[in-house]
Amino acid sequence: MIGKIDGGVTSPIGFAAAAAEANIKYSGRTDMALIYSEKQCAAAGVYTTNVVKAAPVIWDRDITQNRKTAQAVVVNSGIANACTGSEGMDICEQTARHTADALSCLPEDVLVASTGVIGMQIPVDKIKNGVDQMSKGLSGDREAGRKAACAIMTTDTTKKESAVAFEIGGHRVTIGAMAKGSGMIHPDMCTMLAFVTTDACISQAALAKALSCDVQDSFNMISVDGDTSTNDTVLLLANGCADNPQIEENTTEYELFCRALKTVTTDLAKQIAGDGEGATALIEVTVSHAATKEDAKKLAKSVVCSNLTKCAVAGHDANWGRILCALGYAKVDFDPQLADIEFESANGKVCVVKSGKAAVYSEEEATHILSAETVKIKVDLHGGEACATAWGCDLTHGYIDINADYRS
Amino acid sequence: MIGKIDGGVTSPIGFAAAAAEANIKYSGRTDMALIYSEKQCAAAGVYTTNVVKAAPVIWDRDITQNRKTAQAVVVNSGIANACTGSEGMDICEQTARHTADALSCLPEDVLVASTGVIGMQIPVDKIKNGVDQMSKGLSGDREAGRKAACAIMTTDTTKKESAVAFEIGGHRVTIGAMAKGSGMIHPDMCTMLAFVTTDACISQAALAKALSCDVQDSFNMISVDGDTSTNDTVLLLANGCADNPQIEENTTEYELFCRALKTVTTDLAKQIAGDGEGATALIEVTVSHAATKEDAKKLAKSVVCSNLTKCAVAGHDANWGRILCALGYAKVDFDPQLADIEFESANGKVCVVKSGKAAVYSEEEATHILSAETVKIKVDLHGGEACATAWGCDLTHGYIDINADYRS
Repeated sequence: MIGKIDGGVTSPIGFAAAAAEANIKYSGRTDMALIYSEKQCAAAGVYTTNVVKAAPVIWDRDITQNRKTAQAVVVNSGIANACTGSEGMDICEQTARHTADALSCLPEDVLVASTGVIGMQIPVDKIKNGVDQMSKGLSGDREAGRKAACAIMTTDTTKKESAVAFEIGGHRVTIGAMAKGSGMIHPDMCTMLAFVTTDACISQAALAKALSCDVQDSFNMISVDGDTSTNDTVLLLANGCADNPQIEENTTEYELFCRALKTVTTDLAKQIAGDGEGATALIEVTVSHAATKEDAKKLAKSVVCSNLTKCAVAGHDANWGRILCALGYAKVDFDPQLADIEFESANGKVCVVKSGKAAVYSEEEATHILSAETVKIKVDLHGGEACATAWGCDLTHGYIDINADYRS
Repeated sequence: MIGKIDGGVTSPIGFAAAAAEANIKYSGRTDMALIYSEKQCAAAGVYTTNVVKAAPVIWDRDITQNRKTAQAVVVNSGIANACTGSEGMDICEQTARHTADALSCLPEDVLVASTGVIGMQIPVDKIKNGVDQMSKGLSGDREAGRKAACAIMTTDTTKKESAVAFEIGGHRVTIGAMAKGSGMIHPDMCTMLAFVTTDACISQAALAKALSCDVQDSFNMISVDGDTSTNDTVLLLANGCADNPQIEENTTEYELFCRALKTVTTDLAKQIAGDGEGATALIEVTVSHAATKEDAKKLAKSVVCSNLTKCAVAGHDANWGRILCALGYAKVDFDPQLADIEFESANGKVCVVKSGKAAVYSEEEATHILSAETVKIKVDLHGGEACATAWGCDLTHGYIDINADYRS
């Protein structure tokens, strides 16, 4: 019923995108993206919980919480526009005004987002030049969405897109999305930039609720390095072009929309975790039979955030003691003597811990299983009915290489 | 009044120590240590808050909480005796009985501690053989303390000792200590093994209170990798051989004892942080003018735990945005627009952030300052009167090398 399609932010009807080489900090590559909807959209957003919020986060939050509509999103990579004071807010306003002039919409309908180095001011003339290029090059093509997804990358090694299509009341509805994120990624907030478009006709209240529920199990369940960014933003725009009967909260159609949204956001979340800085493996940790959902989430996150567990996976070392240790310091009560742990990948499956102690297994087989690109760690606590999954990546020399001298 | 001396666990009167090559997991090096007091001691301990507690933690906690006396401590490195079920508890009991027989004391007066790989069973015959060697080789010499400190190392690159002497009621009182810890080190508990001996005559109640207060500002303020061990233990033994009038809580003498204890524990805490796995620099983060002490501690710990900040120090990169970011996600309320940040080391001092924004400074000078062996990050929040300091280390390729294949 919900089918994945090859697509991105331009897949839903009525959305166009563009990219530009604005030379804000990078050169020889695109560093700005624009998403535009021909119709005004219902808009929802979730943002970083970091006390230090970048200027675009403050700008967008005001729009999605108060005005609740939008028609365009302007994104730049290279400079984060964080810790930039009133000058940073002024950049947001100038960006929105310039974009509104170029696209004949209202400045209050222009959302902005930035990612990159903290503390530098963005040269506004370069932003304006980028907006001029992009406003002339807007296209609803598949390729335009792809280019936009590439332009927002920083230390990402691959662009991140996802899209699904499904039917509501006989109308085909599409959700498309792009995201970026590789470092400064940590749960308990939205942890990166993600832009989700849909042609669904849906009330703003339903849209906002769908998004805020969704991130709890998708973007908030990933971690690369435990560092929670100042710029984390997920925006969801719905322009209604699919012409379906308007979706309202707590209906069958709403549930379907949420499931479709979750398919897209979970896909992006896994793409981000797997492309963590320096990562060679995506780690998926599932904790089952915990006492409560909240417990299961804390436990799964604790394992996925453990530097020692991440190093063990990097070394293909079945050092399960580190996993039990990470479960133990999650500040959740459980009985370690009931815990079972399994490793699973495309290379097989092995039980390494049975009732809190070493199981009988072959280290060689375990190493082979841990050598795959996606490694699943399955913890069964035999204590309740709740289950949760978190995603992260291994910790390698590549992470150190990237971050010991990121700015030069 | 409180003077640092070159010493360790054998410095206080009446304490002896020994080390042995027991070949438990390592070979060609010592891997067991024994501390023995000729008189029964008042004993206090603080332990890991990890839900998964190693067998020796359970054994010692029972003694220090209920019996409150001890006469010997037996330590092994190589295997942690964690996640070992009832067999692991049996090892503790056999170790204590064998030691008590050899030293003619009570099994209930023998504390045990282990550090190393989780999940393996300790070969008890090797432990007994080590105890036999050590009970014959006990000595109160300076060198015996040094050998014991070396025997408990795992991935540590240097032994860790500290000692002070001071006077109470005309009697010279000495506190001596040794510790180990390099990986699986994280605040919010005692985070490693530390053994503190003193010849002070002090009531057990005062001793226990002094220790539990002390660790809040010493061992609980360090982090290497955010991973909280299953084995963390700090033991404090007082045998009264200094013959001073007994120290009771809330007296001038008690305050003096606490200050002396803090000198030793803070010294060890900094030694552990600076010898973090792969570390090339000790990082000291001080947050001043926070609203409350608790806030200041959370903020300082958040910076010292940030992988991105640790990598920036490794690369001598004055990437202060990561510091403001880490302060921001500490779950403490403060006004980032008032924050100042300075870097200080033996190479100089530079202000990099003034009122939440970039200060004017030379990157070259900042890099020079960050190239020292000890780097101080000073954050002034201009918001209140509270202050706290945390210690950690940089994150380097060495950490990955050590942990991607620790067991082989």
